[in-house]
Amino acid sequence: MVIGKIIGNVWATRKDESLNGLKFMIAQLENGEKIVVCDYIGAGTGDMVLITKGSGARKVLENESIPIDAVTIGIIDGFEEGE
Amino acid sequence: MVIGKIIGNVWATRKDESLNGLKFMIAQLENGEKIVVCDYIGAGTGDMVLITKGSGARKVLENESIPIDAVTIGIIDGFEEGE
Amino acid sequence: MVIGKIIGNVWATRKDESLNGLKFMIAQLENGEKIVVCDYIGAGTGDMVLITKGSGARKVLENESIPIDAVTIGIIDGFEEGE
Amino acid sequence: MVIGKIIGNVWATRKDESLNGLKFMIAQLENGEKIVVCDYIGAGTGDMVLITKGSGARKVLENESIPIDAVTIGIIDGFEEGE
Amino acid sequence: MVIGKIIGNVWATRKDESLNGLKFMIAQLENGEKIVVCDYIGAGTGDMVLITKGSGARKVLENESIPIDAVTIGIIDGFEEGE
Repeated sequence: MVIGKIIGNVWATRKDESLNGLKFMIAQLENGEKIVVCDYIGAGTGDMVLITKGSGARKVLENESIPIDAVTIGIIDGFEEGE
Repeated sequence: MVIGKIIGNVWATRKDESLNGLKFMIAQLENGEKIVVCDYIGAGTGDMVLITKGSGARKVLENESIPIDAVTIGIIDGFEEGE
Repeated sequence: MVIGKIIGNVWATRKDESLNGLKFMIAQLENGEKIVVCDYIGAGTGDMVLITKGSGARKVLENESIPIDAVTIGIIDGFEEGE
Repeated sequence: MVIGKIIGNVWATRKDESLNGLKFMIAQLENGEKIVVCDYIGAGTGDMVLITKGSGARKVLENESIPIDAVTIGIIDGFEEGE
Repeated sequence: MVIGKIIGNVWATRKDESLNGLKFMIAQLENGEKIVVCDYIGAGTGDMVLITKGSGARKVLENESIPIDAVTIGIIDGFEEGE
Protein backbone atom coordinates (compact mmCIF):
# COMPACT_ATOMS: atom_id res chain seq x y z
CA MET A 1 0.00 0.00 0.00
CA VAL A 2 1.04 3.65 -0.21
CA ILE A 3 0.34 6.69 1.91
CA GLY A 4 -1.22 9.67 0.14
CA LYS A 5 -2.61 13.09 1.01
CA ILE A 6 -6.05 13.86 -0.41
CA ILE A 7 -5.66 17.20 -2.25
CA GLY A 8 -8.88 17.47 -4.22
CA ASN A 9 -11.75 15.99 -6.19
CA VAL A 10 -12.26 15.06 -9.83
CA TRP A 11 -15.58 14.91 -11.76
CA ALA A 12 -16.45 13.08 -14.93
CA THR A 13 -20.02 13.23 -16.17
CA ARG A 14 -19.24 11.09 -19.20
CA LYS A 15 -17.96 7.88 -17.70
CA ASP A 16 -18.40 4.11 -17.56
CA GLU A 17 -21.88 3.46 -16.15
CA SER A 18 -20.58 1.16 -13.47
CA LEU A 19 -18.79 4.16 -11.89
CA ASN A 20 -21.99 6.10 -11.19
CA GLY A 21 -22.25 7.07 -7.54
CA LEU A 22 -18.55 6.53 -6.84
CA LYS A 23 -16.45 9.39 -5.44
CA PHE A 24 -13.08 10.13 -7.09
CA MET A 25 -10.42 12.11 -5.29
CA ILE A 26 -6.87 13.20 -6.14
CA ALA A 27 -4.17 11.87 -3.82
CA GLN A 28 -0.58 13.09 -3.76
CA LEU A 29 1.79 10.26 -2.90
CA GLU A 30 4.96 10.49 -0.85
CA ASN A 31 7.10 10.67 -4.03
CA GLY A 32 5.04 13.63 -5.32
CA GLU A 33 3.11 11.59 -7.87
CA LYS A 34 -0.63 12.41 -8.17
CA ILE A 35 -3.12 9.57 -8.68
CA VAL A 36 -6.91 9.31 -8.61
CA VAL A 37 -8.47 7.11 -5.93
CA CYS A 38 -11.98 5.87 -5.44
CA ASP A 39 -12.90 6.92 -1.90
CA TYR A 40 -14.69 4.31 0.16
CA ILE A 41 -13.88 5.60 3.64
CA GLY A 42 -15.30 9.13 3.57
CA ALA A 43 -11.96 10.91 3.30
CA GLY A 44 -11.82 14.67 2.85
CA THR A 45 -9.30 17.09 1.37
CA GLY A 46 -6.27 17.22 3.67
CA ASP A 47 -6.70 13.69 5.05
CA MET A 48 -3.72 11.31 4.97
CA VAL A 49 -4.99 8.00 3.62
CA LEU A 50 -3.85 4.43 3.11
CA ILE A 51 -4.25 3.44 -0.59
CA THR A 52 -4.37 -0.01 -2.18
CA LYS A 53 -3.56 -0.21 -5.91
CA GLY A 54 -4.09 -2.84 -8.61
CA SER A 55 -6.55 -5.73 -8.48
CA GLY A 56 -6.65 -5.49 -4.68
CA ALA A 57 -8.52 -2.18 -5.01
CA ARG A 58 -11.60 -3.97 -6.36
CA LYS A 59 -11.79 -6.19 -3.27
CA VAL A 60 -13.61 -3.42 -1.36
CA LEU A 61 -16.38 -3.37 -3.97
CA GLU A 62 -19.42 -5.60 -3.80
CA ASN A 63 -19.17 -5.80 -7.59
CA GLU A 64 -15.55 -6.59 -8.52
CA SER A 65 -16.17 -5.91 -12.20
CA ILE A 66 -16.02 -2.14 -11.72
CA PRO A 67 -12.96 -0.84 -13.63
CA ILE A 68 -11.00 0.89 -10.81
CA ASP A 69 -7.36 0.30 -9.79
CA ALA A 70 -6.83 2.46 -6.66
CA VAL A 71 -8.95 2.87 -3.51
CA THR A 72 -8.69 4.41 -0.04
CA ILE A 73 -8.75 1.64 2.59
CA GLY A 74 -8.13 3.76 5.69
CA ILE A 75 -7.74 7.29 7.09
CA ILE A 76 -4.41 7.47 8.91
CA ASP A 77 -4.54 8.62 12.55
CA GLY A 78 -0.79 8.62 12.94
CA PHE A 79 2.49 7.02 12.03
CA GLU A 80 5.68 6.58 13.92
CA GLU A 81 9.01 6.36 12.13
CA GLY A 82 12.04 5.28 14.12
CA GLU A 83 15.60 4.78 12.87
CA MET B 1 -6.36 5.60 -11.65
CA VAL B 2 -4.35 8.31 -13.41
CA ILE B 3 -5.30 11.48 -15.24
CA GLY B 4 -4.06 11.82 -18.83
CA LYS B 5 -4.43 14.20 -21.75
CA ILE B 6 -5.33 12.58 -25.06
CA ILE B 7 -2.72 13.82 -27.55
CA GLY B 8 -3.25 11.58 -30.56
CA ASN B 9 -4.15 8.28 -32.17
CA VAL B 10 -2.20 5.14 -33.03
CA TRP B 11 -2.97 2.62 -35.79
CA ALA B 12 -1.85 -0.97 -36.18
CA THR B 13 -3.18 -2.96 -39.13
CA ARG B 14 -1.24 -6.07 -38.13
CA LYS B 15 -2.58 -6.83 -34.68
CA ASP B 16 -4.18 -9.46 -32.47
CA GLU B 17 -7.57 -10.26 -34.01
CA SER B 18 -9.41 -9.64 -30.77
CA LEU B 19 -8.40 -5.95 -31.02
CA ASN B 20 -10.28 -5.36 -34.28
CA GLY B 21 -12.69 -2.45 -33.96
CA LEU B 22 -11.05 -1.03 -30.85
CA LYS B 23 -9.77 2.57 -30.84
CA PHE B 24 -6.25 3.23 -29.53
CA MET B 25 -5.21 6.70 -28.42
CA ILE B 26 -2.03 8.18 -26.97
CA ALA B 27 -2.41 9.74 -23.53
CA GLN B 28 0.21 11.90 -21.82
CA LEU B 29 0.17 11.39 -18.07
CA GLU B 30 0.79 13.99 -15.40
CA ASN B 31 4.44 12.87 -15.03
CA GLY B 32 5.03 13.31 -18.80
CA GLU B 33 4.94 9.59 -19.57
CA LYS B 34 3.08 8.61 -22.78
CA ILE B 35 0.94 5.46 -22.80
CA VAL B 36 -1.59 3.95 -25.21
CA VAL B 37 -5.17 3.59 -24.00
CA CYS B 38 -8.12 1.79 -25.44
CA ASP B 39 -10.86 4.43 -25.68
CA TYR B 40 -14.28 3.32 -24.57
CA ILE B 41 -15.81 6.70 -23.78
CA GLY B 42 -15.51 8.54 -27.10
CA ALA B 43 -12.64 10.79 -26.05
CA GLY B 44 -11.00 13.12 -28.57
CA THR B 45 -7.59 14.74 -28.86
CA GLY B 46 -7.26 17.39 -26.15
CA ASP B 47 -9.65 15.72 -23.71
CA MET B 48 -8.50 15.11 -20.11
CA VAL B 49 -9.43 11.54 -19.24
CA LEU B 50 -9.53 9.20 -16.26
CA ILE B 51 -7.49 6.03 -17.04
CA THR B 52 -7.56 2.62 -15.35
CA LYS B 53 -4.48 0.41 -15.81
CA GLY B 54 -3.78 -3.30 -15.28
CA SER B 55 -6.35 -6.08 -15.05
CA GLY B 56 -9.04 -3.53 -14.11
CA ALA B 57 -8.88 -2.17 -17.66
CA ARG B 58 -10.45 -5.36 -19.01
CA LYS B 59 -13.50 -4.98 -16.75
CA VAL B 60 -15.06 -2.51 -19.23
CA LEU B 61 -14.96 -5.14 -21.97
CA GLU B 62 -17.72 -7.66 -22.55
CA ASN B 63 -14.94 -10.12 -23.43
CA GLU B 64 -12.27 -9.94 -20.68
CA SER B 65 -9.85 -12.05 -22.71
CA ILE B 66 -8.85 -9.13 -24.92
CA PRO B 67 -5.16 -8.33 -24.25
CA ILE B 68 -5.36 -4.67 -23.17
CA ASP B 69 -3.98 -3.10 -19.96
CA ALA B 70 -5.15 0.56 -20.05
CA VAL B 71 -8.57 2.07 -20.80
CA THR B 72 -10.36 5.42 -20.56
CA ILE B 73 -13.15 5.20 -17.97
CA GLY B 74 -14.25 8.84 -17.98
CA ILE B 75 -13.84 12.27 -19.59
CA ILE B 76 -12.97 14.76 -16.86
CA ASP B 77 -15.26 17.81 -16.56
CA GLY B 78 -13.18 19.43 -13.86
CA PHE B 79 -10.99 18.93 -10.85
CA GLU B 80 -10.45 21.00 -7.77
CA GLU B 81 -7.16 20.91 -5.90
CA GLY B 82 -7.03 22.54 -2.50
CA GLU B 83 -4.07 22.71 -0.08
CA MET C 1 10.01 -9.40 -4.46
CA VAL C 2 11.84 -6.43 -2.91
CA ILE C 3 13.96 -5.97 0.18
CA GLY C 4 12.85 -3.30 2.64
CA LYS C 5 13.80 -2.00 6.06
CA ILE C 6 10.94 -1.66 8.55
CA ILE C 7 11.12 1.94 9.82
CA GLY C 8 7.83 2.35 11.67
CA ASN C 9 4.13 1.71 12.12
CA VAL C 10 0.98 3.29 10.76
CA TRP C 11 -2.47 3.38 12.41
CA ALA C 12 -5.88 3.94 10.87
CA THR C 13 -8.93 3.68 13.12
CA ARG C 14 -11.30 4.46 10.26
CA LYS C 15 -10.61 1.71 7.77
CA ASP C 16 -12.17 -1.09 5.73
CA GLU C 17 -13.62 -3.59 8.21
CA SER C 18 -11.77 -6.49 6.66
CA LEU C 19 -8.49 -4.90 7.79
CA ASN C 20 -9.32 -5.09 11.50
CA GLY C 21 -6.62 -6.90 13.43
CA LEU C 22 -3.99 -6.53 10.69
CA LYS C 23 -0.67 -4.81 11.47
CA PHE C 24 0.56 -2.11 9.05
CA MET C 25 4.19 -1.09 8.99
CA ILE C 26 6.24 1.37 6.93
CA ALA C 27 9.05 -0.18 4.90
CA GLN C 28 11.79 1.79 3.15
CA LEU C 29 12.85 0.08 -0.05
CA GLU C 30 16.33 -0.07 -1.52
CA ASN C 31 15.55 2.83 -3.88
CA GLY C 32 14.45 5.03 -0.94
CA GLU C 33 10.73 4.67 -1.67
CA LYS C 34 8.48 4.20 1.40
CA ILE C 35 5.53 1.79 1.20
CA VAL C 36 3.10 0.32 3.72
CA VAL C 37 3.17 -3.43 4.23
CA CYS C 38 0.86 -5.75 6.06
CA ASP C 39 3.09 -7.65 8.49
CA TYR C 40 2.45 -11.35 8.73
CA ILE C 41 5.81 -12.49 10.05
CA GLY C 42 6.14 -10.52 13.27
CA ALA C 43 8.70 -8.05 11.97
CA GLY C 44 9.86 -5.15 14.14
CA THR C 45 11.30 -1.70 13.46
CA GLY C 46 14.82 -2.13 12.09
CA ASP C 47 14.23 -5.57 10.58
CA MET C 48 15.19 -6.18 6.93
CA VAL C 49 12.26 -7.94 5.30
CA LEU C 50 11.34 -9.66 2.06
CA ILE C 51 8.19 -8.06 0.58
CA THR C 52 5.77 -9.40 -2.03
CA LYS C 53 3.64 -6.82 -3.89
CA GLY C 54 0.49 -7.01 -6.03
CA SER C 55 -2.01 -9.87 -6.09
CA GLY C 56 0.63 -12.23 -4.69
CA ALA C 57 0.42 -10.37 -1.37
CA ARG C 58 -3.09 -11.71 -0.75
CA LYS C 59 -1.89 -15.32 -1.07
CA VAL C 60 -0.71 -15.26 2.57
CA LEU C 61 -4.24 -14.43 3.75
CA GLU C 62 -6.84 -17.06 4.53
CA ASN C 63 -9.36 -14.62 3.06
CA GLU C 64 -8.01 -13.37 -0.30
CA SER C 65 -10.69 -10.70 -0.56
CA ILE C 66 -8.90 -8.40 1.87
CA PRO C 67 -7.81 -5.26 -0.04
CA ILE C 68 -4.03 -5.29 0.55
CA ASP C 69 -1.25 -5.17 -2.09
CA ALA C 70 2.02 -5.59 -0.11
CA VAL C 71 2.99 -8.06 2.62
CA THR C 72 6.11 -9.20 4.49
CA ILE C 73 6.89 -12.84 3.59
CA GLY C 74 10.18 -13.21 5.46
CA ILE C 75 12.67 -11.61 7.86
CA ILE C 76 16.08 -11.59 6.19
CA ASP C 77 18.91 -13.23 8.12
CA GLY C 78 21.54 -12.26 5.61
CA PHE C 79 22.40 -11.69 2.01
CA GLU C 80 25.55 -12.17 0.04
CA GLU C 81 26.32 -10.06 -2.99
CA GLY C 82 29.21 -11.14 -5.19
CA GLU C 83 30.43 -9.53 -8.40
CA MET D 1 -0.29 -0.33 -23.34
CA VAL D 2 3.09 1.13 -24.28
CA ILE D 3 4.83 1.78 -27.58
CA GLY D 4 8.24 0.18 -28.06
CA LYS D 5 10.85 -0.20 -30.77
CA ILE D 6 12.10 -3.74 -31.36
CA ILE D 7 15.90 -3.53 -31.12
CA GLY D 8 16.96 -7.18 -30.98
CA ASN D 9 16.46 -10.76 -29.90
CA VAL D 10 17.26 -12.74 -26.78
CA TRP D 11 17.92 -16.50 -26.52
CA ALA D 12 17.72 -18.79 -23.51
CA THR D 13 18.33 -22.50 -24.03
CA ARG D 14 17.81 -23.27 -20.36
CA LYS D 15 14.29 -22.07 -19.70
CA ASP D 16 10.87 -23.04 -18.39
CA GLU D 17 9.56 -25.78 -20.67
CA SER D 18 6.31 -23.97 -21.35
CA LEU D 19 8.33 -21.25 -23.16
CA ASN D 20 9.65 -23.61 -25.85
CA GLY D 21 8.86 -22.31 -29.32
CA LEU D 22 8.14 -18.75 -28.15
CA LYS D 23 10.11 -15.85 -29.63
CA PHE D 24 11.63 -13.28 -27.23
CA MET D 25 12.63 -9.84 -28.45
CA ILE D 26 14.08 -6.75 -26.78
CA ALA D 27 11.92 -3.63 -27.00
CA GLN D 28 13.06 -0.14 -26.08
CA LEU D 29 10.23 1.90 -24.61
CA GLU D 30 9.60 5.59 -25.05
CA ASN D 31 11.26 6.37 -21.70
CA GLY D 32 14.42 4.49 -22.75
CA GLU D 33 13.69 1.44 -20.62
CA LYS D 34 14.47 -1.95 -22.25
CA ILE D 35 12.11 -4.88 -21.65
CA VAL D 36 11.73 -8.35 -23.16
CA VAL D 37 8.52 -9.12 -25.01
CA CYS D 38 7.09 -12.34 -26.31
CA ASP D 39 6.40 -11.70 -30.01
CA TYR D 40 3.10 -12.97 -31.30
CA ILE D 41 2.70 -10.73 -34.31
CA GLY D 42 5.83 -11.47 -36.33
CA ALA D 43 7.62 -8.24 -35.51
CA GLY D 44 11.18 -7.66 -36.69
CA THR D 45 14.07 -5.51 -35.50
CA GLY D 46 13.23 -1.87 -36.17
CA ASP D 47 9.46 -2.31 -35.97
CA MET D 48 7.44 -0.01 -33.67
CA VAL D 49 5.08 -2.23 -31.69
CA LEU D 50 2.15 -1.95 -29.31
CA ILE D 51 2.93 -3.87 -26.07
CA THR D 52 0.58 -5.14 -23.37
CA LYS D 53 2.12 -5.81 -19.93
CA GLY D 54 0.99 -7.76 -16.85
CA SER D 55 -1.71 -10.43 -16.72
CA GLY D 56 -3.24 -9.06 -19.94
CA ALA D 57 -0.18 -10.35 -21.83
CA ARG D 58 -1.25 -13.95 -21.25
CA LYS D 59 -4.65 -13.33 -22.89
CA VAL D 60 -3.08 -13.81 -26.34
CA LEU D 61 -1.93 -17.31 -25.39
CA GLU D 62 -4.08 -20.40 -25.82
CA ASN D 63 -2.53 -21.62 -22.58
CA GLU D 64 -2.71 -18.79 -20.01
CA SER D 65 -0.45 -20.62 -17.60
CA ILE D 66 2.70 -19.69 -19.50
CA PRO D 67 4.81 -17.40 -17.27
CA ILE D 68 5.12 -14.28 -19.47
CA ASP D 69 4.22 -10.67 -18.56
CA ALA D 70 4.74 -8.66 -21.79
CA VAL D 71 3.62 -9.35 -25.36
CA THR D 72 3.42 -7.57 -28.72
CA ILE D 73 -0.24 -7.08 -29.70
CA GLY D 74 0.29 -5.01 -32.86
CA ILE D 75 2.79 -3.55 -35.31
CA ILE D 76 2.22 0.20 -35.50
CA ASP D 77 1.60 1.64 -38.98
CA GLY D 78 1.51 5.20 -37.78
CA PHE D 79 0.58 7.58 -35.01
CA GLU D 80 -0.57 11.15 -35.05
CA GLU D 81 0.12 13.48 -32.14
CA GLY D 82 -1.67 16.80 -32.08
CA GLU D 83 -1.44 19.53 -29.41
CA MET E 1 9.82 -9.59 -18.87
CA VAL E 2 13.10 -7.98 -17.79
CA ILE E 3 16.74 -9.01 -18.04
CA GLY E 4 18.70 -9.16 -14.78
CA LYS E 5 22.12 -10.21 -13.58
CA ILE E 6 22.16 -12.54 -10.59
CA ILE E 7 24.46 -10.86 -8.02
CA GLY E 8 23.82 -12.86 -4.87
CA ASN E 9 21.58 -14.82 -2.52
CA VAL E 10 19.23 -13.88 0.29
CA TRP E 11 18.24 -16.04 3.28
CA ALA E 12 15.24 -15.77 5.59
CA THR E 13 14.77 -18.40 8.26
CA ARG E 14 11.59 -16.77 9.56
CA LYS E 15 9.31 -16.80 6.55
CA ASP E 16 5.92 -17.87 5.24
CA GLU E 17 5.81 -21.67 5.43
CA SER E 18 4.85 -22.04 1.79
CA LEU E 19 8.27 -20.61 0.83
CA ASN E 20 10.24 -23.45 2.45
CA GLY E 21 12.61 -25.06 -0.02
CA LEU E 22 12.51 -22.15 -2.48
CA LYS E 23 15.74 -20.40 -3.48
CA PHE E 24 15.84 -16.58 -3.38
CA MET E 25 18.45 -14.65 -5.32
CA ILE E 26 19.19 -10.96 -5.82
CA ALA E 27 19.00 -9.76 -9.43
CA GLN E 28 20.22 -6.38 -10.65
CA LEU E 29 18.06 -5.09 -13.48
CA GLU E 30 19.19 -3.09 -16.47
CA ASN E 31 18.12 0.17 -14.82
CA GLY E 32 20.23 -0.62 -11.72
CA GLU E 33 17.27 -1.61 -9.55
CA LYS E 34 17.80 -4.67 -7.32
CA ILE E 35 14.95 -7.14 -6.84
CA VAL E 36 14.63 -10.59 -5.28
CA VAL E 37 13.67 -13.46 -7.56
CA CYS E 38 12.65 -17.00 -6.83
CA ASP E 39 15.03 -19.16 -8.88
CA TYR E 40 13.46 -22.04 -10.71
CA ILE E 41 16.07 -22.57 -13.39
CA GLY E 42 19.22 -23.24 -11.37
CA ALA E 43 20.82 -19.86 -12.01
CA GLY E 44 24.08 -18.92 -10.29
CA THR E 45 25.76 -15.66 -9.34
CA GLY E 46 26.88 -13.90 -12.52
CA ASP E 47 24.21 -15.45 -14.77
CA MET E 48 22.09 -13.16 -16.96
CA VAL E 49 18.48 -14.26 -16.51
CA LEU E 50 15.05 -13.61 -17.98
CA ILE E 51 12.63 -12.57 -15.18
CA THR E 52 8.82 -12.57 -15.14
CA LYS E 53 7.15 -10.29 -12.56
CA GLY E 54 3.63 -10.06 -11.12
CA SER E 55 0.98 -12.77 -11.19
CA GLY E 56 2.75 -14.44 -14.14
CA ALA E 57 5.57 -15.42 -11.77
CA ARG E 58 3.30 -17.89 -9.96
CA LYS E 59 2.54 -19.74 -13.21
CA VAL E 60 5.81 -21.69 -12.87
CA LEU E 61 4.70 -23.06 -9.50
CA GLU E 62 2.66 -26.20 -9.08
CA ASN E 63 0.93 -24.41 -6.21
CA GLU E 64 -0.08 -20.92 -7.41
CA SER E 65 -0.97 -19.80 -3.90
CA ILE E 66 2.66 -19.25 -2.94
CA PRO E 67 3.16 -15.50 -2.30
CA ILE E 68 5.94 -14.67 -4.81
CA ASP E 69 5.92 -11.96 -7.50
CA ALA E 70 9.18 -12.45 -9.46
CA VAL E 71 10.77 -15.61 -10.88
CA THR E 72 13.61 -16.60 -13.25
CA ILE E 73 12.16 -18.23 -16.38
CA GLY E 74 15.39 -18.63 -18.36
CA ILE E 75 19.17 -18.30 -18.36
CA ILE E 76 20.17 -16.07 -21.26
CA ASP E 77 22.70 -17.53 -23.72
CA GLY E 78 22.96 -14.37 -25.75
CA PHE E 79 21.21 -11.33 -27.09
CA GLU E 80 21.67 -9.34 -30.23
CA GLU E 81 20.83 -5.66 -30.37
CA GLY E 82 20.74 -4.01 -33.78
CA GLU E 83 19.89 -0.38 -34.59
